[in-house]
Amino acid sequence: MKKLTTTILSDVICQRPPNSYKGTFGRAVLIGGNEQFGGAILMSAEAALASGTGLVTVVTAEKNHAALHARSPEAMVVDWSNDELLASVLENATVILIGPGLGLETISHELLTFVLTHQKESQWLVIDGSAITLFAEMNLILKYPKMTVFTPHQMEWQRLSQLLINEQSETANKKKQAEIGGTIVLKSHRTEIYGLTATYSNPIGTPAMATGGMGDTLAGMITGFLAQFENKEAAICAAVYLHSLIGETLGKTHYVVLPTEISKQLPLFMKKYEQ
Amino acid sequence: MKKLTTTILSDVICQRPPNSYKGTFGRAVLIGGNEQFGGAILMSAEAALASGTGLVTVVTAEKNHAALHARSPEAMVVDWSNDELLASVLENATVILIGPGLGLETISHELLTFVLTHQKESQWLVIDGSAITLFAEMNLILKYPKMTVFTPHQMEWQRLSQLLINEQSETANKKKQAEIGGTIVLKSHRTEIYGLTATYSNPIGTPAMATGGMGDTLAGMITGFLAQFENKEAAICAAVYLHSLIGETLGKTHYVVLPTEISKQLPLFMKKYEQ
Amino acid sequence: MKKLTTTILSDVICQRPPNSYKGTFGRAVLIGGNEQFGGAILMSAEAALASGTGLVTVVTAEKNHAALHARSPEAMVVDWSNDELLASVLENATVILIGPGLGLETISHELLTFVLTHQKESQWLVIDGSAITLFAEMNLILKYPKMTVFTPHQMEWQRLSQLLINEQSETANKKKQAEIGGTIVLKSHRTEIYGLTATYSNPIGTPAMATGGMGDTLAGMITGFLAQFENKEAAICAAVYLHSLIGETLGKTHYVVLPTEISKQLPLFMKKYEQ
Amino acid sequence: MKKLTTTILSDVICQRPPNSYKGTFGRAVLIGGNEQFGGAILMSAEAALASGTGLVTVVTAEKNHAALHARSPEAMVVDWSNDELLASVLENATVILIGPGLGLETISHELLTFVLTHQKESQWLVIDGSAITLFAEMNLILKYPKMTVFTPHQMEWQRLSQLLINEQSETANKKKQAEIGGTIVLKSHRTEIYGLTATYSNPIGTPAMATGGMGDTLAGMITGFLAQFENKEAAICAAVYLHSLIGETLGKTHYVVLPTEISKQLPLFMKKYEQ
Repeated sequence: MKKLTTTILSDVICQRPPNSYKGTFGRAVLIGGNEQFGGAILMSAEAALASGTGLVTVVTAEKNHAALHARSPEAMVVDWSNDELLASVLENATVILIGPGLGLETISHELLTFVLTHQKESQWLVIDGSAITLFAEMNLILKYPKMTVFTPHQMEWQRLSQLLINEQSETANKKKQAEIGGTIVLKSHRTEIYGLTATYSNPIGTPAMATGGMGDTLAGMITGFLAQFENKEAAICAAVYLHSLIGETLGKTHYVVLPTEISKQLPLFMKKYEQ
Repeated sequence: MKKLTTTILSDVICQRPPNSYKGTFGRAVLIGGNEQFGGAILMSAEAALASGTGLVTVVTAEKNHAALHARSPEAMVVDWSNDELLASVLENATVILIGPGLGLETISHELLTFVLTHQKESQWLVIDGSAITLFAEMNLILKYPKMTVFTPHQMEWQRLSQLLINEQSETANKKKQAEIGGTIVLKSHRTEIYGLTATYSNPIGTPAMATGGMGDTLAGMITGFLAQFENKEAAICAAVYLHSLIGETLGKTHYVVLPTEISKQLPLFMKKYEQ
Repeated sequence: MKKLTTTILSDVICQRPPNSYKGTFGRAVLIGGNEQFGGAILMSAEAALASGTGLVTVVTAEKNHAALHARSPEAMVVDWSNDELLASVLENATVILIGPGLGLETISHELLTFVLTHQKESQWLVIDGSAITLFAEMNLILKYPKMTVFTPHQMEWQRLSQLLINEQSETANKKKQAEIGGTIVLKSHRTEIYGLTATYSNPIGTPAMATGGMGDTLAGMITGFLAQFENKEAAICAAVYLHSLIGETLGKTHYVVLPTEISKQLPLFMKKYEQ
Repeated sequence: MKKLTTTILSDVICQRPPNSYKGTFGRAVLIGGNEQFGGAILMSAEAALASGTGLVTVVTAEKNHAALHARSPEAMVVDWSNDELLASVLENATVILIGPGLGLETISHELLTFVLTHQKESQWLVIDGSAITLFAEMNLILKYPKMTVFTPHQMEWQRLSQLLINEQSETANKKKQAEIGGTIVLKSHRTEIYGLTATYSNPIGTPAMATGGMGDTLAGMITGFLAQFENKEAAICAAVYLHSLIGETLGKTHYVVLPTEISKQLPLFMKKYEQ
């Protein structure tokens, strides 16, 4: 298992090409936020925007639209019950994230199957939160496993891999990752990444980050990094590492680090590590 | 009566265990915010989040949901007329707060009785604001008095204890606290805490804090501290003391201290006093 | 005409009494904000809160409630079509402000007459913006002129006084003020105050303040100062002077001073000039 | 082609006249923001306000009103399906902006034709975003070409001019500008301005600005500058240059510059370059 260091940041975070426009930095579609967990997808959107994604569209319950615009006018928004519009924004997506605050209702199921069947060969797909639970429970199938990232915490990984938490050893996890075929970001106080070519461990982080929404922010960062950077496995690792690095830095002066504070720091930290 | 000092802060605010996750720091359910007083529960939520609670769910009139998410996407939200969902979030709560902006309407009554009957033996309950008035007027009964905290100002304490404001001496208050059986945080310009094992006085605070919403913020802090810290009586005292300490500090440069400013300072002050 | 100086600030902004609570600093009811001009009453509310009013209730079109709470959870809110609730909040008001963003519709008329007939002898009333136009057009009558403040700009003063702008000399204005019987805050790049005992001119201010919402902010400050401070004529003068002083100070580094920036500075400036 | 320098800023950004009021600095009406792209017009509004426009009215889908007020209470708002009110706000406009987030629906068409037919000889009109696409597709006609500014990116310019992107040479563009008769702000990583009297190139900018909403912010700034400053061609150039200058400055420390960050800096940068 390779231990991540700040090197991963300078490897990944490249200078933006001078002759570029917003499309150069990807189109992310973020799907989640039901009536109870709307804040989750708002936090993912903030992270995706602040990490430099070119264009971000949020697909969420209508109830969440006003708060999304109040916080992030940079994001576009689609009512998640509008299939036609959803299909059209998915068509042009570089990366799709589904899961933050998605819930386990009928519409959550429907959205997940819709996304799984509409994913195109060139599109990265990040499956997070309750979408992982749904995926496991419904025995769904990936069209393009190599283009898919799961971001489970340990209990969600148990559901997906059928490995009990105390069975989740590196070897067992690696084997399950190979069966599933996608990348696994296994979140815990020391997150591990089971990638397509190697396995990585994140040696940093702080308990000050143990608060609701931290995973939604990470999912948004992974999405943003996949939207922009060439080497996808490294991009995922860099997002994980940077998330913890910012948390650890803020944690030196903050007893608890609110997830939205991580996003605020992203443009500054990314500049610092730009290669 | 024991005079609180900064010692209470370092006694209570412990280092977070390295191997922890959001569940380690409790699940708070905050109930309040009718159509007129919605801001109250928003302020409680900000205080609970910023003091480090693992997960915060706000149960409030639907009208307040957009503003809650616009300010605090970290919080989850439940429409307070949805009994089924309310029951399910209460089921998993570590601490329940009811009262900020709750009002005195029929639904306020119903919610209070619902909470009082659903409280479990392991769950702390904080009763604030109009919930105290309702509790007194309706002659309601506590299931687990020792797990209950009332946070009345002097007029609310009069309603609850039937002691007129000028009769509210330490002895009389102590006696009433014993009859009620719960903890009493009696708010005034010098707040007193009638705990299960002792009585405490808070020697600090500033008239710059005398502004609407200050009590809602305190209620959110008490809830957040109960959610995280082991010694519950000390946790309540620490929340009261820290609330005044931040207010006093900001009051050196601010003629009036807005309650939301207190919450913004919480992560920084808590870090400073972490033992 | 007395020229205002910083002396007015230290004369008015007194130390808050140690043994005080939010009620000590007044209850302000702010009425305005139709479907088009909702932002106006939000800005008044921010100014009233930041200047230290104990309790602020905003009475506005329902459409504006979410934005109000998103910006100022410290404020309470009442739907302006709810007469019964309006009557009850007016009952307990220390100061009433009507006008910012009120509009000229039927409901605007109704609200103004409602307020004029419900004003109690002890209640200060500030009439601003379109409420001045309505007052003039409808030939309405003040119950307690000495307890009333009008805050017209020059065109509104023309409507109210029937003095054309070029006829608005000190003598003519003073005469009209005496007829009307209330205090007149005549806003221009050099605001004049025609008080009950004297006439004052504000020698400061900056064209950087010439932007929409500046008057709504001033109205909120006057309301907040009347709610708290003993000498009412001096309080009005101090609010006018401080509004310009903050604007002038920010104007040294800002080409335009947004009204909400004035409110953010209020607690700091008031502390600086506290006597 | 004249290369823009900071000189354009001091040429344009004049000291505000001492005896001025909000009307002195223009009335801008901003039209855009459908159900999917509401954030766009919010960002334009922030830029117009922060650049010093006297009064800003936003005409947008009702769904966006709460978020607009939550972010910018300084703006007034009109439901874009209210023709009567729209006509009345247009009547008094100094500058009209149409396009940010306007969409391509029936109502978008209707609004554009409404504006084109209602423009008065004295009113500047800025046509941005999807309004350019609609204008091109529907073969619409300008009433006052010299009072009109188009702000296309290269693909929108292709639609408007029928020049393929690789045919968009200075000569070809200049010829098309002359045919159209209005000013063309051709946005790319090095924006060019085809004015009525000359052609200008903007030598600055940074790929950190390549993110959704940057154009909406620029459109708001151009609108704000046209509302205030005498020499209109220079005002447009100054807005373009300052937009890039702020972006470049923030880009030294930020990997990505969010458009709303540009607006926050406007009052400070404008003061620095005030002549």
